[in-house]
Parts: sequence; C-alpha cells; structure tokens
Amino acid sequence: MSETDSSIEADVFARNCSSREALQNATSRWGILALAALAEGDYRFNALRRRVDGVSERMLSQTLHTLERDGLVVRTVLQSIPPKVEYSLTPLGRQVAEQLTGLIDLMQSNLPAVLAARAEHDAR
Amino acid sequence: MSETDSSIEADVFARNCSSREALQNATSRWGILALAALAEGDYRFNALRRRVDGVSERMLSQTLHTLERDGLVVRTVLQSIPPKVEYSLTPLGRQVAEQLTGLIDLMQSNLPAVLAARAEHDAR
Repeated sequence: MSETDSSIEADVFARNCSSREALQNATSRWGILALAALAEGDYRFNALRRRVDGVSERMLSQTLHTLERDGLVVRTVLQSIPPKVEYSLTPLGRQVAEQLTGLIDLMQSNLPAVLAARAEHDAR
Repeated sequence: MSETDSSIEADVFARNCSSREALQNATSRWGILALAALAEGDYRFNALRRRVDGVSERMLSQTLHTLERDGLVVRTVLQSIPPKVEYSLTPLGRQVAEQLTGLIDLMQSNLPAVLAARAEHDAR
C-alpha cells in the first residue's frame, strides 16, 4: 500500500508497499534493539545508548528519529534545568516491541542449537 | 554468548554475543521475508524469488545460505531430471517464522496509523 491507494491491502511482499519499509525500520540492526530496550521502560538517550551496546550516538539518534516518525516511539522533552529528553513507546510501539521481545527470547534460548547448526555446516 | 563460553546466558544486547548475529540474520532485509514466505510452505528457488518481490538472485542465495547455516532453513536436492532444489523451514525456523509473521501482520494492519504518524511528523 502506498500513500495514495489506501484502499489496497498492505503487503510486505510487494516491493513498493510502505508496510515493507515500516517493517524494515522496526527490524533494522539498531531499531530492533532500541524497541526491545524501550519495552523494559522509558530511557534517556545516554542510558539507552549504554543499554544498546555498540551503537554510535549518530546511529541511535537516526534510529530513534525514524521510529518516532513511524509512530512507534515518543520523544519527550522534560521541563528541567538542564532539559532532559526521554524516549518511550507508543501503544503501537509497545505491540511491535512485544513481538520483537518474543523473537529475541526465542533466539537467545535457542542459541546453542544455532551454534551447533553452524559448526555442523562448517564441518561439511 | 560466544562459541567458547556456553555457560554464560545469551544476550542480544551484548555486542559480541552470537545471539545478536543470529537475530540479525533472521531479521535482515531479505531474511525476514524469506522466512515468512517459507512459513506458507516449501518453495523452489525461483518461486521463492518471485514471492519475495524485488530480491536479486544473488541476495536471495546469500540469505538462504546464511539461514541454512544457522539451522533455520533446510535445502533439499530432489532426485529428478533435472534435479530440483527445494527450501523448507526447520522446527526452529518455523518458530522464528511464526514470530515474524505475527510482526508482519501487526505492521500490515497498522499501516494506516504509521502513514498518519509520518504525515503528522513531516508537517511539523
């Protein structure tokens, strides 16, 4: 579904459907980890950066901006001195993050099987 | 968790944990769509390439190889003339694909909300 034909059903398998882009924003390298972290609770930028180990300031900033634009994340500027910026999930962001958390749990708990499959594959 | 310290719990938030790599292989641009397509049934290479609209032969081939190495996809050579190659999900691949399908359904059904959020954001 593109912005101009909202009567057609969304289909991530179609290369020009905006749902594919939205899916890929939420499952980008850093998007998936930022959403899963925010499922634990709200974060300020630097704390989120520490939680998502390895992300650069620039990439986290870009990732959060994309997720905010897609309506998954809210950026709140708190009226304090100095001002503090906090990130949280929208209701849709929370639903997406719950799916991602399920996937992450599955991957973490099945890591021994994945590593065994890799070892077997590489020994062929 | 790396290959050498299997006693430590897997954690996708740790930059060197192999579970992060496994997660990112399954949620790569084409990995997510290939797994979701294979959740519909087994596919031969060219049919899968048609289903995953927009993927190049080379990228689909690389993606399937990575998913096969991680133990999510099985490649079967059928004894026929000419030989046919079919791709299917392993039991773990099926569990991963079910999570991804849930995420895809969520994104497709909420696309109007995502597009509205984008329009509002861009009008600011």
